[in-house]
Amino acid sequence: MKIAFAQLSPVHGDTPATVALVAEAARAAAADGARLIVFPECFLTGGSFDDRAALLQAAVDIERGDLAPILLAAREADIHVVVGFYQKSGPQALNTAALIGPEGIIGLHHKMHLPFMIGDRFADIPQIEGPSVFDTAIGRIGLAICYEIRFPEVIRTLALEGAELVVLPAAWPEAARILPDLFSRVRAAENFVYFLSSNRIDVDDGMAFMGSSHVIGPDGNEIFNAGMQEGIFTVDIDLARARTKSIIRDPGVYEVHPFRDRRPQDYRICAAPAALWLEA
Amino acid sequence: MKIAFAQLSPVHGDTPATVALVAEAARAAAADGARLIVFPECFLTGGSFDDRAALLQAAVDIERGDLAPILLAAREADIHVVVGFYQKSGPQALNTAALIGPEGIIGLHHKMHLPFMIGDRFADIPQIEGPSVFDTAIGRIGLAICYEIRFPEVIRTLALEGAELVVLPAAWPEAARILPDLFSRVRAAENFVYFLSSNRIDVDDGMAFMGSSHVIGPDGNEIFNAGMQEGIFTVDIDLARARTKSIIRDPGVYEVHPFRDRRPQDYRICAAPAALWLEA
Repeated sequence: MKIAFAQLSPVHGDTPATVALVAEAARAAAADGARLIVFPECFLTGGSFDDRAALLQAAVDIERGDLAPILLAAREADIHVVVGFYQKSGPQALNTAALIGPEGIIGLHHKMHLPFMIGDRFADIPQIEGPSVFDTAIGRIGLAICYEIRFPEVIRTLALEGAELVVLPAAWPEAARILPDLFSRVRAAENFVYFLSSNRIDVDDGMAFMGSSHVIGPDGNEIFNAGMQEGIFTVDIDLARARTKSIIRDPGVYEVHPFRDRRPQDYRICAAPAALWLEA
Repeated sequence: MKIAFAQLSPVHGDTPATVALVAEAARAAAADGARLIVFPECFLTGGSFDDRAALLQAAVDIERGDLAPILLAAREADIHVVVGFYQKSGPQALNTAALIGPEGIIGLHHKMHLPFMIGDRFADIPQIEGPSVFDTAIGRIGLAICYEIRFPEVIRTLALEGAELVVLPAAWPEAARILPDLFSRVRAAENFVYFLSSNRIDVDDGMAFMGSSHVIGPDGNEIFNAGMQEGIFTVDIDLARARTKSIIRDPGVYEVHPFRDRRPQDYRICAAPAALWLEA
């Protein structure tokens, strides 16, 4: 199955124009045979704001129909789209990744772990207790956003819920290079999932992003990395590979089964109240 | 503080001779100023056995005094030692890493996650529900063994219990190279801990190990890697660095607090019974 990501610059400060760009890129990817195209974090709205009011002013309102051109493109071109934006949802300001399919919005992931930087300083932590995993016509897709790659529990929960492909829209500056270089590969390998990060390449209010959008296989090997190239990139994957959670080199002699061998009863501290680390 | 690891060949099939070698290396490391020396997994006994009886025959019996020369060296030289071996404990055959200090045995970690290979095929899973973290005169040390690096929950629980240095004796063949190359660095960086893996370099019953014993800093950068060199290697570390669980690049503008930002209530699936993945 072909999947794609778009390492493009948004139209800064113009969400309708960026929405149109996303719709156009989705149609182009579909014409190239892709069943999914992924855009970075905060792609539709930008990510840098000086206060909450400015963030809410720029935020996407799904109810108002802000995503309509993307929904139309997904339906007409028969493609799935993942795209990130700040979302106004009632009184809340959320950092959201939307999974859109030909049938409409399949799921929304609201970033649960917010770094104290860019607009996330002014966004709300959603009240969610469960992983963002969605069944689609092309497979079982898990969503997380950017900083959430730092939390092994996040991608683990997606995999335990059966995600075959984890999609992580990102906005990583150079200082975060360890995340695409190392964390992505380990998140894929430790969970035996495909992993797709779509990162920005533009400059947003002085912050420069580092590109390096990539697709990792369930063995942790990088299949493709876009570096700082601009464009739409398509990769062929086989999601069935992500359903095998064992490595069997010599049956009965050398086998590892990292999912079967988990000992959840010993991991309770991971899910215990976090009193210990409430440092400033 | 100086810490060391020994990338040496054991005396195959001769546990008393290997115990003597460990005691001698511990004295040498102490003379060089090291406060800790770490040896690989199954170093005292070898790791490859064809059946459980052979494994139990070769296993270390702590009650019998098999470790006495190491205990003596640790006391006389005022050094801490971590060393791995198969252990006979009552009716059980366990894969054990012992943390020994000048005052005697400080703690034992029994490998909880057993790959289906080498002697681990015939070993027992211990009934443990809690992380192997031990306070010592030189800092708070967490223990895990080899394959357990594949489980993000294992090292996470050690860090949540306050481990500053995670010590992981290993017996990795070339096929497992992703573990020292990528997993070690991410385990250190995601938990902001020092990470020391001591791997074998010898050949044991046809299985060749890949060395690459190493020390990683809490930022995920490798401080030293021994490659395939034989010897005792000493590294200077500052455990205070492992007590800071945040990255603050620009106060109030760019801060990340990956421990404070954890959302344990959303990780319950990590600690839930593992019905889903009981595949063969």
